[in-house]
Amino acid sequence: MKFGIAIFPSKSIQDEANSYRKRYDPHYSLISPHITLKAPFDADENVIKDVTSELRYIAKDTKPFTIYINKVSSFAPVTNTIYLKVEPIQSLIDLNSHVHEGIFPAQNKHSFVPHITIAQNLTDDEFSDVFSSLRMKKIQFQDKVDRFHLLYQLENGSWTVHDSFVLGH
Amino acid sequence: MKFGIAIFPSKSIQDEANSYRKRYDPHYSLISPHITLKAPFDADENVIKDVTSELRYIAKDTKPFTIYINKVSSFAPVTNTIYLKVEPIQSLIDLNSHVHEGIFPAQNKHSFVPHITIAQNLTDDEFSDVFSSLRMKKIQFQDKVDRFHLLYQLENGSWTVHDSFVLGH
Repeated sequence: MKFGIAIFPSKSIQDEANSYRKRYDPHYSLISPHITLKAPFDADENVIKDVTSELRYIAKDTKPFTIYINKVSSFAPVTNTIYLKVEPIQSLIDLNSHVHEGIFPAQNKHSFVPHITIAQNLTDDEFSDVFSSLRMKKIQFQDKVDRFHLLYQLENGSWTVHDSFVLGH
Repeated sequence: MKFGIAIFPSKSIQDEANSYRKRYDPHYSLISPHITLKAPFDADENVIKDVTSELRYIAKDTKPFTIYINKVSSFAPVTNTIYLKVEPIQSLIDLNSHVHEGIFPAQNKHSFVPHITIAQNLTDDEFSDVFSSLRMKKIQFQDKVDRFHLLYQLENGSWTVHDSFVLGH
């Protein structure tokens, strides 16, 4: 089974992200707007019990923190993905590290760029149009993060939450 | 903000339900297949803290239990909704009662019929066709329930998980 770990920002940010995703992100209907802490990884049900305990431990050991979103950015030229850039504060970086060490698969080692995807799989022309318009938007959000979620993927590609982990608990 | 309380059955059941929902349920992309414990209710963020504490208490006080799904049924003639019928065992009935008493809004008092919707908003003709075909299906699932979830609705109608509550913890 395929699992992933993510933070869902608060409703106002999700609504804003969805207003773009609706048109520009084919994953719009598969998962709510999110910050990926760990990309999809394979695990069977037995391992997941250990993963869950470990995540509970990590959550307990992490204080709630505030994130800041100040602009629209893009992974171009690597990919055409456009995203709300989440400032890479230490708490986020630490959380990301924790879920890539110990019992967790390390996965690919590209550096962690916290973000909320709002457009992907665009053609080059679409990308130019959409990014030049979105990067001009005045985006400013501040949000308290007090939990993250372990999710699993269904056959249709959509994601269901398995467990939520409240920070500091 | 609109909240709801639901159980997500395990992946195999969700995949089966989605194979029908994809064609017959306009809510297909808004939420994963689920058993509703409490229909959508309005609450503000402050109340939700108390709701969450209460749900944690209810979960702690409920042992994990097994559900059985043995047939496709329908709410006709009240509505054209078609569903996987979940046998109404006492643990489910108790959970449903607990989230309609005390601090929780009582909502409408129709009796609790645990189910996983697989088709809704069909025309009368569609309903006849689809139901006569689906009711012949041999459906048999058994599933362990060890958690439920508090969800909230985004502006686009989709649902995000706010919190999960593990039974017996």
